[in-house]
Amino acid sequence: MALWFRESASPAHRLEWKIRQELYSGQSPFQSIQVLDTEQFGPSLVLDGIMQTTTGDEFIYHEMLAYVPLLAHPHPRRVLIIGGGDGGLAREVLKVPGVEEVVLVEIDPVVVEVARRFLPQHTVALDDPRLTLIHADGAAYLTDQKTEPFDVILVDSTDPEGDGPGTVLYTPAFHQALYEGLADDGLYVQQTGAAFYNPEVVEQVSHSVVTRFPLCRVYWCTVPTYPGALFTFTSGSKRYDIQKPSTPLTWPTRWYTPQIHQLAFALPPYLSQRLPETVVTAQKGPNA
Amino acid sequence: MALWFRESASPAHRLEWKIRQELYSGQSPFQSIQVLDTEQFGPSLVLDGIMQTTTGDEFIYHEMLAYVPLLAHPHPRRVLIIGGGDGGLAREVLKVPGVEEVVLVEIDPVVVEVARRFLPQHTVALDDPRLTLIHADGAAYLTDQKTEPFDVILVDSTDPEGDGPGTVLYTPAFHQALYEGLADDGLYVQQTGAAFYNPEVVEQVSHSVVTRFPLCRVYWCTVPTYPGALFTFTSGSKRYDIQKPSTPLTWPTRWYTPQIHQLAFALPPYLSQRLPETVVTAQKGPNA
Repeated sequence: MALWFRESASPAHRLEWKIRQELYSGQSPFQSIQVLDTEQFGPSLVLDGIMQTTTGDEFIYHEMLAYVPLLAHPHPRRVLIIGGGDGGLAREVLKVPGVEEVVLVEIDPVVVEVARRFLPQHTVALDDPRLTLIHADGAAYLTDQKTEPFDVILVDSTDPEGDGPGTVLYTPAFHQALYEGLADDGLYVQQTGAAFYNPEVVEQVSHSVVTRFPLCRVYWCTVPTYPGALFTFTSGSKRYDIQKPSTPLTWPTRWYTPQIHQLAFALPPYLSQRLPETVVTAQKGPNA
Repeated sequence: MALWFRESASPAHRLEWKIRQELYSGQSPFQSIQVLDTEQFGPSLVLDGIMQTTTGDEFIYHEMLAYVPLLAHPHPRRVLIIGGGDGGLAREVLKVPGVEEVVLVEIDPVVVEVARRFLPQHTVALDDPRLTLIHADGAAYLTDQKTEPFDVILVDSTDPEGDGPGTVLYTPAFHQALYEGLADDGLYVQQTGAAFYNPEVVEQVSHSVVTRFPLCRVYWCTVPTYPGALFTFTSGSKRYDIQKPSTPLTWPTRWYTPQIHQLAFALPPYLSQRLPETVVTAQKGPNA
Protein backbone atom coordinates (compact mmCIF):
# COMPACT_ATOMS: atom_id res chain seq x y z
CA MET A 1 0.00 0.00 0.00
CA ALA A 2 1.58 3.24 -1.18
CA LEU A 3 2.02 6.13 1.26
CA TRP A 4 0.87 9.57 0.16
CA PHE A 5 1.47 12.94 1.80
CA ARG A 6 -1.52 15.22 1.45
CA GLU A 7 -1.43 19.02 1.75
CA SER A 8 -4.19 21.63 1.54
CA ALA A 9 -3.58 24.42 -0.95
CA SER A 10 -6.91 25.95 0.00
CA PRO A 11 -10.08 24.61 1.62
CA ALA A 12 -11.16 23.34 -1.82
CA HIS A 13 -7.86 22.07 -3.27
CA ARG A 14 -5.34 19.48 -2.08
CA LEU A 15 -2.07 18.08 -3.40
CA GLU A 16 -0.81 14.55 -2.83
CA TRP A 17 2.78 13.35 -3.17
CA LYS A 18 3.76 9.69 -3.16
CA ILE A 19 6.20 8.93 -0.37
CA ARG A 20 9.00 6.36 -0.50
CA GLN A 21 9.57 6.74 3.23
CA GLU A 22 9.39 9.18 6.10
CA LEU A 23 12.99 10.08 6.88
CA TYR A 24 12.27 12.20 9.96
CA SER A 25 9.34 13.31 12.07
CA GLY A 26 9.51 15.48 15.18
CA GLN A 27 8.18 18.47 17.03
CA SER A 28 10.44 21.44 17.82
CA PRO A 29 9.46 24.25 20.18
CA PHE A 30 8.36 26.17 17.08
CA GLN A 31 6.68 23.73 14.70
CA SER A 32 6.20 20.16 13.56
CA ILE A 33 9.00 19.02 11.26
CA GLN A 34 9.04 16.14 8.78
CA VAL A 35 11.41 15.07 6.07
CA LEU A 36 9.67 12.91 3.46
CA ASP A 37 11.40 11.12 0.62
CA THR A 38 8.97 11.89 -2.21
CA GLU A 39 9.03 9.79 -5.35
CA GLN A 40 8.59 12.89 -7.54
CA PHE A 41 11.17 15.27 -6.08
CA GLY A 42 13.23 13.31 -3.54
CA PRO A 43 13.84 14.32 0.09
CA SER A 44 11.52 17.19 1.04
CA LEU A 45 11.06 19.33 4.15
CA VAL A 46 7.55 19.70 5.59
CA LEU A 47 6.82 22.22 8.37
CA ASP A 48 3.45 22.22 10.16
CA GLY A 49 2.07 20.01 7.39
CA ILE A 50 3.11 22.30 4.51
CA MET A 51 5.71 21.34 1.91
CA GLN A 52 8.54 23.88 2.18
CA THR A 53 11.31 22.72 -0.14
CA THR A 54 12.11 19.63 -2.19
CA THR A 55 15.40 18.39 -3.58
CA GLY A 56 13.95 18.21 -7.09
CA ASP A 57 12.47 21.67 -7.59
CA GLU A 58 14.10 23.89 -4.95
CA PHE A 59 16.34 25.48 -7.57
CA ILE A 60 13.48 27.62 -8.92
CA TYR A 61 12.55 29.31 -5.65
CA HIS A 62 16.10 29.69 -4.37
CA GLU A 63 17.52 31.08 -7.62
CA MET A 64 14.66 33.56 -7.97
CA LEU A 65 14.80 34.71 -4.35
CA ALA A 66 18.60 35.08 -4.40
CA TYR A 67 19.55 36.33 -7.86
CA VAL A 68 16.84 38.88 -8.63
CA PRO A 69 17.82 41.13 -5.69
CA LEU A 70 21.54 40.28 -5.61
CA LEU A 71 22.11 40.86 -9.32
CA ALA A 72 20.06 44.08 -9.19
CA HIS A 73 22.09 45.50 -6.28
CA PRO A 74 25.49 46.62 -7.64
CA HIS A 75 27.52 45.66 -4.52
CA PRO A 76 25.69 43.27 -2.18
CA ARG A 77 28.53 42.81 0.32
CA ARG A 78 26.55 42.15 3.51
CA VAL A 79 23.47 39.94 3.21
CA LEU A 80 21.01 38.95 5.92
CA ILE A 81 18.82 35.88 5.49
CA ILE A 82 15.85 35.60 7.85
CA GLY A 83 14.59 32.03 7.93
CA GLY A 84 16.09 29.79 5.27
CA GLY A 85 17.42 27.26 7.80
CA ASP A 86 17.44 24.56 5.12
CA GLY A 87 20.48 26.30 3.62
CA GLY A 88 19.33 26.36 -0.02
CA LEU A 89 19.06 30.12 -0.24
CA ALA A 90 22.46 30.70 1.43
CA ARG A 91 24.02 28.33 -1.11
CA GLU A 92 22.82 30.53 -3.99
CA VAL A 93 23.66 33.82 -2.23
CA LEU A 94 27.25 32.69 -1.69
CA LYS A 95 27.69 32.14 -5.44
CA VAL A 96 27.24 35.86 -6.17
CA PRO A 97 30.52 37.74 -6.72
CA GLY A 98 31.25 40.37 -4.09
CA VAL A 99 29.24 38.81 -1.28
CA GLU A 100 31.57 39.08 1.74
CA GLU A 101 29.31 38.21 4.64
CA VAL A 102 26.05 36.32 5.04
CA VAL A 103 24.20 36.28 8.36
CA LEU A 104 21.57 33.54 8.48
CA VAL A 105 19.06 33.98 11.30
CA GLU A 106 16.94 30.85 11.63
CA ILE A 107 14.65 30.64 14.63
CA ASP A 108 14.56 26.84 14.75
CA PRO A 109 17.85 24.91 15.26
CA VAL A 110 16.08 21.63 14.47
CA VAL A 111 15.41 22.77 10.89
CA VAL A 112 19.15 23.24 10.35
CA GLU A 113 20.05 19.91 12.02
CA VAL A 114 17.50 18.02 9.98
CA ALA A 115 18.53 19.70 6.72
CA ARG A 116 22.18 18.80 7.36
CA ARG A 117 21.18 15.17 7.78
CA PHE A 118 18.64 14.74 5.00
CA LEU A 119 18.99 17.63 2.51
CA PRO A 120 22.70 17.65 1.67
CA GLN A 121 22.10 19.43 -1.65
CA HIS A 122 20.61 22.34 0.29
CA THR A 123 23.23 22.59 3.03
CA VAL A 124 26.40 22.32 0.95
CA ALA A 125 27.39 25.94 1.70
CA LEU A 126 26.42 26.16 5.38
CA ASP A 127 30.07 25.81 6.47
CA ASP A 128 31.32 28.55 4.15
CA PRO A 129 33.58 30.82 6.26
CA ARG A 130 31.63 33.89 5.06
CA LEU A 131 28.43 32.57 6.69
CA THR A 132 27.40 33.22 10.31
CA LEU A 133 24.50 31.10 11.55
CA ILE A 134 22.45 32.55 14.40
CA HIS A 135 19.45 30.91 16.03
CA ALA A 136 17.13 33.74 16.96
CA ASP A 137 13.85 35.35 16.06
CA GLY A 138 14.59 37.18 12.82
CA ALA A 139 12.35 40.15 13.57
CA ALA A 140 13.87 40.59 17.05
CA TYR A 141 17.41 40.21 15.67
CA LEU A 142 16.75 42.97 13.20
CA THR A 143 15.38 45.29 15.87
CA ASP A 144 18.10 44.58 18.44
CA GLN A 145 21.25 44.19 16.34
CA LYS A 146 23.69 47.07 16.59
CA THR A 147 26.01 45.91 13.78
CA GLU A 148 26.39 47.78 10.52
CA PRO A 149 23.43 47.79 8.17
CA PHE A 150 22.85 45.21 5.45
CA ASP A 151 22.95 45.73 1.71
CA VAL A 152 20.35 43.06 1.04
CA ILE A 153 17.89 41.26 3.34
CA LEU A 154 16.14 38.12 2.12
CA VAL A 155 13.18 36.78 4.07
CA ASP A 156 12.82 33.04 3.38
CA SER A 157 9.98 32.11 5.68
CA THR A 158 6.93 29.95 6.09
CA ASP A 159 3.58 31.46 5.13
CA PRO A 160 1.73 33.75 7.57
CA GLU A 161 -0.49 30.99 8.94
CA GLY A 162 -2.07 31.26 12.39
CA ASP A 163 0.54 31.45 15.15
CA GLY A 164 3.34 29.86 13.10
CA PRO A 165 6.82 31.40 13.34
CA GLY A 166 6.46 33.17 9.98
CA THR A 167 3.43 35.29 10.80
CA VAL A 168 5.35 38.19 12.41
CA LEU A 169 7.32 38.60 9.16
CA TYR A 170 4.26 39.92 7.34
CA THR A 171 3.44 42.86 9.65
CA PRO A 172 4.02 46.60 9.10
CA ALA A 173 6.26 46.64 12.20
CA PHE A 174 8.54 44.11 10.53
CA HIS A 175 8.67 46.12 7.32
CA GLN A 176 9.73 49.14 9.38
CA ALA A 177 12.47 47.05 11.03
CA LEU A 178 13.64 45.91 7.58
CA TYR A 179 13.85 49.51 6.44
CA GLU A 180 15.92 50.48 9.47
CA GLY A 181 18.21 47.47 9.14
CA LEU A 182 19.16 48.27 5.56
CA ALA A 183 21.95 50.52 4.31
CA ASP A 184 21.01 53.78 2.59
CA ASP A 185 20.97 51.95 -0.73
CA GLY A 186 19.74 48.62 0.63
CA LEU A 187 16.88 46.46 -0.58
CA TYR A 188 14.93 43.46 0.63
CA VAL A 189 12.71 40.67 -0.73
CA GLN A 190 10.23 38.32 0.92
CA GLN A 191 8.03 35.53 -0.44
CA THR A 192 4.37 36.48 -0.48
CA GLY A 193 2.79 33.23 -1.55
CA ALA A 194 0.31 32.07 -4.15
CA ALA A 195 -1.74 34.89 -5.61
CA PHE A 196 -4.63 32.58 -6.60
CA TYR A 197 -5.29 31.09 -3.18
CA ASN A 198 -3.90 33.70 -0.77
CA PRO A 199 -4.00 36.98 -2.69
CA GLU A 200 -4.35 38.98 0.51
CA VAL A 201 -0.71 38.28 1.42
CA VAL A 202 0.91 40.00 -1.56
CA GLU A 203 -1.76 42.67 -1.42
CA GLN A 204 -1.19 43.54 2.24
CA VAL A 205 2.60 43.34 2.09
CA SER A 206 2.88 45.50 -1.01
CA HIS A 207 0.60 48.13 0.49
CA SER A 208 2.73 48.12 3.65
CA VAL A 209 6.04 48.28 1.76
CA VAL A 210 4.97 51.05 -0.58
CA THR A 211 4.38 53.39 2.38
CA ARG A 212 7.88 52.76 3.80
CA PHE A 213 10.26 52.30 0.85
CA PRO A 214 10.85 54.62 -2.12
CA LEU A 215 10.55 51.59 -4.44
CA CYS A 216 8.23 48.62 -4.06
CA ARG A 217 8.16 45.87 -6.69
CA VAL A 218 6.37 42.55 -6.99
CA TYR A 219 7.67 39.66 -9.06
CA TRP A 220 6.69 36.04 -9.56
CA CYS A 221 7.82 32.60 -10.49
CA THR A 222 6.16 29.21 -10.66
CA VAL A 223 7.14 26.15 -8.62
CA PRO A 224 5.60 22.66 -9.03
CA THR A 225 5.35 22.02 -5.30
CA TYR A 226 3.85 25.43 -4.45
CA PRO A 227 0.21 25.12 -5.53
CA GLY A 228 -1.48 27.96 -7.35
CA ALA A 229 0.90 28.44 -10.29
CA LEU A 230 1.61 32.10 -9.61
CA PHE A 231 4.05 32.37 -6.69
CA THR A 232 4.91 35.93 -5.66
CA PHE A 233 7.77 37.87 -4.08
CA THR A 234 7.50 41.42 -2.77
CA SER A 235 10.46 43.78 -2.42
CA GLY A 236 11.28 47.15 -0.93
CA SER A 237 14.28 49.14 -2.08
CA LYS A 238 15.80 52.44 -0.98
CA ARG A 239 17.60 53.25 -4.23
CA TYR A 240 18.05 50.58 -6.91
CA ASP A 241 15.21 49.34 -9.10
CA ILE A 242 15.23 45.59 -8.56
CA GLN A 243 13.64 45.06 -12.01
CA LYS A 244 16.98 45.72 -13.70
CA PRO A 245 19.86 43.27 -13.41
CA SER A 246 23.15 45.18 -13.02
CA THR A 247 25.61 42.31 -12.46
CA PRO A 248 26.22 39.79 -15.27
CA LEU A 249 25.42 36.14 -14.61
CA THR A 250 28.67 34.22 -15.02
CA TRP A 251 27.84 30.82 -13.50
CA PRO A 252 25.41 28.07 -14.49
CA THR A 253 21.80 28.22 -13.35
CA ARG A 254 18.80 25.97 -13.94
CA TRP A 255 16.02 28.55 -13.83
CA TYR A 256 17.28 32.14 -13.55
CA THR A 257 18.40 34.03 -16.63
CA PRO A 258 18.62 37.81 -17.12
CA GLN A 259 15.57 37.52 -19.41
CA ILE A 260 13.59 35.65 -16.77
CA HIS A 261 14.66 38.31 -14.25
CA GLN A 262 12.82 40.88 -16.35
CA LEU A 263 9.92 38.55 -17.21
CA ALA A 264 9.28 38.03 -13.53
CA PHE A 265 8.09 41.63 -13.17
CA ALA A 266 5.56 41.39 -16.00
CA LEU A 267 2.37 41.05 -13.98
CA PRO A 268 -0.91 39.76 -15.38
CA PRO A 269 -3.77 42.24 -14.90
CA TYR A 270 -5.41 39.60 -12.71
CA LEU A 271 -2.63 40.18 -10.15
CA SER A 272 -1.68 43.81 -10.78
CA GLN A 273 -5.22 45.03 -10.12
CA ARG A 274 -4.68 44.08 -6.47
CA LEU A 275 -1.44 46.03 -6.07
CA PRO A 276 -0.67 49.67 -5.26
CA GLU A 277 -0.87 51.93 -8.31
CA THR A 278 2.78 53.04 -8.05
CA VAL A 279 3.99 49.44 -8.14
CA VAL A 280 2.01 48.65 -11.28
CA THR A 281 2.85 51.85 -13.14
CA ALA A 282 6.56 51.51 -12.45
CA GLN A 283 6.61 47.89 -13.59
CA LYS A 284 4.96 48.66 -16.90
CA GLY A 285 7.80 51.01 -17.76
CA PRO A 286 7.67 54.14 -19.88
CA ASN A 287 6.77 52.37 -23.15
CA ALA A 288 4.05 50.01 -22.02
CA MET B 1 -19.18 13.92 3.41
CA ALA B 2 -17.45 16.18 0.88
CA LEU B 3 -16.88 14.95 -2.68
CA TRP B 4 -13.42 15.34 -4.15
CA PHE B 5 -12.28 14.86 -7.74
CA ARG B 6 -8.80 13.35 -7.91
CA GLU B 7 -6.48 13.56 -10.92
CA SER B 8 -3.01 12.13 -11.49
CA ALA B 9 -0.40 14.64 -12.59
CA SER B 10 2.19 11.87 -12.70
CA PRO B 11 2.44 8.42 -11.09
CA ALA B 12 3.79 10.13 -7.95
CA HIS B 13 1.63 13.27 -7.77
CA ARG B 14 -2.12 13.82 -7.57
CA LEU B 15 -4.42 16.83 -7.35
CA GLU B 16 -7.77 16.92 -5.59
CA TRP B 17 -10.55 19.44 -6.13
CA LYS B 18 -13.58 19.74 -3.87
CA ILE B 19 -16.80 19.24 -5.82
CA ARG B 20 -20.11 20.94 -5.10
CA GLN B 21 -21.87 18.59 -7.49
CA GLU B 22 -21.43 16.57 -10.64
CA LEU B 23 -23.32 18.47 -13.32
CA TYR B 24 -22.87 15.92 -16.09
CA SER B 25 -21.33 12.52 -16.66
CA GLY B 26 -21.36 10.56 -19.89
CA GLN B 27 -19.42 8.57 -22.42
CA SER B 28 -19.15 9.77 -26.03
CA PRO B 29 -17.76 7.64 -28.86
CA PHE B 30 -14.43 9.40 -28.23
CA GLN B 31 -13.99 9.80 -24.49
CA SER B 32 -15.57 9.99 -21.07
CA ILE B 33 -16.97 13.45 -20.34
CA GLN B 34 -17.78 15.03 -16.97
CA VAL B 35 -18.70 18.52 -15.90
CA LEU B 36 -17.93 19.08 -12.22
CA ASP B 37 -18.88 22.17 -10.26
CA THR B 38 -15.64 22.72 -8.31
CA GLU B 39 -15.65 24.88 -5.21
CA GLN B 40 -12.36 26.51 -6.22
CA PHE B 41 -12.97 27.37 -9.88
CA GLY B 42 -16.65 26.68 -10.62
CA PRO B 43 -17.97 24.48 -13.44
CA SER B 44 -15.11 22.52 -15.00
CA LEU B 45 -14.79 20.11 -17.93
CA VAL B 46 -13.10 16.74 -17.34
CA LEU B 47 -12.23 14.45 -20.29
CA ASP B 48 -11.03 10.90 -19.66
CA GLY B 49 -10.43 11.81 -16.02
CA ILE B 50 -8.24 14.86 -16.75
CA MET B 51 -9.26 18.42 -15.90
CA GLN B 52 -9.38 20.34 -19.19
CA THR B 53 -10.76 23.79 -18.43
CA THR B 54 -12.39 25.54 -15.48
CA THR B 55 -14.54 28.64 -15.35
CA GLY B 56 -12.22 30.25 -12.80
CA ASP B 57 -8.81 29.98 -14.45
CA GLU B 58 -9.50 29.32 -18.16
CA PHE B 59 -8.58 32.91 -19.03
CA ILE B 60 -4.86 32.21 -18.67
CA TYR B 61 -4.66 29.34 -21.13
CA HIS B 62 -7.10 30.78 -23.66
CA GLU B 63 -5.57 34.26 -23.71
CA MET B 64 -2.05 32.88 -24.09
CA LEU B 65 -3.00 30.39 -26.82
CA ALA B 66 -5.03 32.98 -28.78
CA TYR B 67 -3.21 36.29 -28.42
CA VAL B 68 0.44 35.33 -28.72
CA PRO B 69 0.02 34.00 -32.29
CA LEU B 70 -2.83 36.31 -33.37
CA LEU B 71 -1.13 39.50 -32.23
CA ALA B 72 2.16 38.36 -33.77
CA HIS B 73 0.59 37.67 -37.17
CA PRO B 74 -0.09 41.04 -38.86
CA HIS B 75 -3.35 39.97 -40.59
CA PRO B 76 -4.88 36.80 -39.14
CA ARG B 77 -7.99 36.78 -41.32
CA ARG B 78 -8.68 33.03 -41.53
CA VAL B 79 -8.17 31.01 -38.36
CA LEU B 80 -8.56 27.27 -37.85
CA ILE B 81 -9.07 25.85 -34.36
CA ILE B 82 -8.55 22.11 -34.00
CA GLY B 83 -10.19 20.86 -30.83
CA GLY B 84 -11.39 23.61 -28.51
CA GLY B 85 -14.98 22.39 -28.48
CA ASP B 86 -15.58 24.12 -25.16
CA GLY B 87 -15.56 27.42 -27.07
CA GLY B 88 -13.21 29.36 -24.78
CA LEU B 89 -10.46 29.72 -27.36
CA ALA B 90 -12.86 30.77 -30.14
CA ARG B 91 -14.24 33.48 -27.84
CA GLU B 92 -10.77 35.03 -27.49
CA VAL B 93 -9.88 34.59 -31.19
CA LEU B 94 -13.03 36.45 -32.22
CA LYS B 95 -11.96 39.49 -30.15
CA VAL B 96 -8.92 40.08 -32.35
CA PRO B 97 -9.41 42.84 -34.95
CA GLY B 98 -9.27 41.63 -38.54
CA VAL B 99 -10.36 38.05 -37.88
CA GLU B 100 -12.93 37.38 -40.61
CA GLU B 101 -13.46 33.65 -40.40
CA VAL B 102 -12.93 31.01 -37.73
CA VAL B 103 -13.34 27.33 -38.51
CA LEU B 104 -13.62 25.23 -35.36
CA VAL B 105 -13.09 21.51 -35.96
CA GLU B 106 -14.04 19.57 -32.83
CA ILE B 107 -14.15 15.80 -33.15
CA ASP B 108 -16.67 15.30 -30.35
CA PRO B 109 -20.15 16.92 -30.64
CA VAL B 110 -20.91 16.01 -27.03
CA VAL B 111 -18.15 18.34 -25.80
CA VAL B 112 -19.83 21.26 -27.55
CA GLU B 113 -23.32 20.29 -26.31
CA VAL B 114 -22.15 19.94 -22.74
CA ALA B 115 -20.17 23.19 -22.85
CA ARG B 116 -23.24 25.06 -24.14
CA ARG B 117 -25.25 23.74 -21.20
CA PHE B 118 -22.76 24.07 -18.35
CA LEU B 119 -19.93 26.43 -19.41
CA PRO B 120 -21.77 29.53 -20.68
CA GLN B 121 -18.73 31.75 -20.07
CA HIS B 122 -16.79 29.59 -22.55
CA THR B 123 -19.43 29.32 -25.28
CA VAL B 124 -20.57 32.95 -25.45
CA ALA B 125 -19.09 33.39 -28.95
CA LEU B 126 -20.02 30.04 -30.51
CA ASP B 127 -22.93 31.61 -32.43
CA ASP B 128 -20.83 34.43 -33.88
CA PRO B 129 -21.61 34.56 -37.63
CA ARG B 130 -17.89 34.47 -38.44
CA LEU B 131 -17.57 31.02 -36.83
CA THR B 132 -18.14 27.70 -38.64
CA LEU B 133 -18.37 24.66 -36.39
CA ILE B 134 -17.46 21.32 -37.95
CA HIS B 135 -17.49 17.97 -36.20
CA ALA B 136 -14.64 16.01 -37.72
CA ASP B 137 -11.19 14.66 -37.00
CA GLY B 138 -8.96 17.72 -37.08
CA ALA B 139 -6.00 15.96 -38.66
CA ALA B 140 -8.18 14.43 -41.38
CA TYR B 141 -9.94 17.75 -42.01
CA LEU B 142 -6.60 19.43 -42.53
CA THR B 143 -5.45 16.76 -44.97
CA ASP B 144 -8.70 16.60 -46.93
CA GLN B 145 -9.91 20.19 -47.00
CA LYS B 146 -9.62 21.90 -50.34
CA THR B 147 -10.49 25.40 -49.12
CA GLU B 148 -8.01 28.25 -49.10
CA PRO B 149 -5.17 28.03 -46.61
CA PHE B 150 -5.31 29.42 -43.09
CA ASP B 151 -3.34 32.32 -41.68
CA VAL B 152 -3.25 30.84 -38.18
CA ILE B 153 -4.00 27.35 -36.87
CA LEU B 154 -4.48 26.80 -33.14
CA VAL B 155 -4.47 23.27 -31.78
CA ASP B 156 -6.41 23.17 -28.51
CA SER B 157 -6.35 19.50 -27.69
CA THR B 158 -6.15 16.96 -24.92
CA ASP B 159 -2.72 15.58 -24.06
CA PRO B 160 -1.19 12.78 -26.15
CA GLU B 161 -2.31 10.02 -23.78
CA GLY B 162 -2.73 6.45 -24.99
CA ASP B 163 -5.42 6.14 -27.67
CA GLY B 164 -7.22 9.38 -26.72
CA PRO B 165 -8.38 11.64 -29.57
CA GLY B 166 -5.49 14.07 -29.03
CA THR B 167 -2.63 11.64 -29.66
CA VAL B 168 -2.58 12.01 -33.47
CA LEU B 169 -2.04 15.78 -33.03
CA TYR B 170 1.50 15.22 -31.74
CA THR B 171 2.89 13.25 -34.69
CA PRO B 172 5.26 14.39 -37.46
CA ALA B 173 2.55 13.58 -40.03
CA PHE B 174 0.25 16.09 -38.36
CA HIS B 175 2.97 18.74 -38.32
CA GLN B 176 3.40 18.20 -42.05
CA ALA B 177 -0.36 18.60 -42.54
CA LEU B 178 -0.27 21.83 -40.51
CA TYR B 179 2.51 23.14 -42.73
CA GLU B 180 0.54 22.36 -45.88
CA GLY B 181 -2.70 23.83 -44.51
CA LEU B 182 -1.11 27.20 -43.75
CA ALA B 183 -0.74 30.19 -46.08
CA ASP B 184 2.76 31.15 -47.22
CA ASP B 185 3.07 33.43 -44.19
CA GLY B 186 1.00 31.28 -41.83
CA LEU B 187 1.82 30.08 -38.35
CA TYR B 188 0.45 27.60 -35.83
CA VAL B 189 0.56 26.89 -32.08
CA GLN B 190 -0.26 23.79 -30.02
CA GLN B 191 -0.19 23.09 -26.31
CA THR B 192 2.67 20.78 -25.34
CA GLY B 193 1.94 20.21 -21.68
CA ALA B 194 3.80 20.36 -18.41
CA ALA B 195 7.56 20.34 -18.85
CA PHE B 196 8.18 18.91 -15.35
CA TYR B 197 6.04 15.80 -15.67
CA ASN B 198 5.87 15.20 -19.44
CA PRO B 199 9.00 16.87 -20.85
CA GLU B 200 9.07 14.47 -23.79
CA VAL B 201 6.02 16.15 -25.35
CA VAL B 202 7.54 19.61 -25.86
CA GLU B 203 10.85 17.97 -26.71
CA GLN B 204 9.43 15.72 -29.45
CA VAL B 205 7.10 18.35 -30.91
CA SER B 206 9.77 21.04 -31.10
CA HIS B 207 12.20 18.65 -32.78
CA SER B 208 9.49 17.72 -35.30
CA VAL B 209 8.47 21.34 -35.97
CA VAL B 210 12.01 22.63 -36.38
CA THR B 211 12.58 20.26 -39.33
CA ARG B 212 9.42 21.47 -41.13
CA PHE B 213 9.02 25.19 -40.41
CA PRO B 214 11.53 28.00 -40.92
CA LEU B 215 10.75 29.25 -37.38
CA CYS B 216 10.00 27.15 -34.31
CA ARG B 217 9.39 28.79 -30.94
CA VAL B 218 8.42 27.53 -27.49
CA TYR B 219 6.66 29.68 -24.91
CA TRP B 220 5.06 29.03 -21.56
CA CYS B 221 2.52 30.13 -19.02
CA THR B 222 1.36 28.80 -15.67
CA VAL B 223 -2.19 27.64 -14.86
CA PRO B 224 -3.40 26.58 -11.39
CA THR B 225 -5.35 23.58 -12.66
CA TYR B 226 -2.58 22.28 -14.93
CA PRO B 227 -0.14 20.63 -12.53
CA GLY B 228 3.58 21.11 -12.99
CA ALA B 229 3.82 24.91 -12.90
CA LEU B 230 5.52 25.25 -16.29
CA PHE B 231 2.92 24.79 -19.05
CA THR B 232 4.30 24.95 -22.60
CA PHE B 233 3.17 25.86 -26.11
CA THR B 234 5.09 25.03 -29.28
CA SER B 235 4.72 26.94 -32.53
CA GLY B 236 5.80 26.70 -36.13
CA SER B 237 5.82 29.73 -38.44
CA LYS B 238 6.61 30.22 -42.11
CA ARG B 239 7.52 33.92 -41.92
CA TYR B 240 6.67 35.96 -38.81
CA ASP B 241 8.53 35.58 -35.53
CA ILE B 242 5.80 34.84 -33.02
CA GLN B 243 7.93 36.33 -30.23
CA LYS B 244 7.11 39.85 -31.42
CA PRO B 245 3.61 41.31 -31.03
CA SER B 246 2.72 43.38 -34.11
CA THR B 247 -0.90 44.30 -33.33
CA PRO B 248 -1.67 46.54 -30.33
CA LEU B 249 -3.88 45.17 -27.56
CA THR B 250 -6.93 47.45 -27.36
CA TRP B 251 -9.34 45.42 -25.22
CA PRO B 252 -9.24 44.28 -21.59
CA THR B 253 -7.46 41.05 -20.64
CA ARG B 254 -6.89 39.30 -17.33
CA TRP B 255 -3.55 37.60 -18.08
CA TYR B 256 -2.08 38.60 -21.45
CA THR B 257 -0.12 41.82 -21.83
CA PRO B 258 2.40 42.73 -24.57
CA GLN B 259 5.14 42.40 -21.91
CA ILE B 260 3.99 38.93 -20.94
CA HIS B 261 3.86 38.05 -24.65
CA GLN B 262 7.55 38.78 -25.11
CA LEU B 263 8.68 37.36 -21.83
CA ALA B 264 6.76 34.11 -22.24
CA PHE B 265 9.59 33.11 -24.58
CA ALA B 266 12.21 33.48 -21.82
CA LEU B 267 12.94 29.83 -21.07
CA PRO B 268 14.67 28.54 -17.95
CA PRO B 269 17.80 26.51 -18.76
CA TYR B 270 16.05 23.55 -17.15
CA LEU B 271 13.64 23.57 -20.12
CA SER B 272 15.76 25.03 -22.92
CA GLN B 273 18.39 22.32 -22.58
CA ARG B 274 15.80 19.88 -23.95
CA LEU B 275 14.97 21.93 -27.04
CA PRO B 276 16.57 22.21 -30.49
CA GLU B 277 19.56 24.55 -30.57
CA THR B 278 17.99 26.89 -33.15
CA VAL B 279 14.93 27.41 -30.97
CA VAL B 280 16.98 28.35 -27.94
CA THR B 281 19.44 30.60 -29.75
CA ALA B 282 16.68 32.53 -31.49
CA GLN B 283 14.77 33.04 -28.25
CA LYS B 284 17.78 34.47 -26.44
CA GLY B 285 17.96 37.26 -29.01
CA PRO B 286 21.04 39.13 -30.15
CA ASN B 287 21.83 40.73 -26.76
CA ALA B 288 21.47 37.78 -24.42
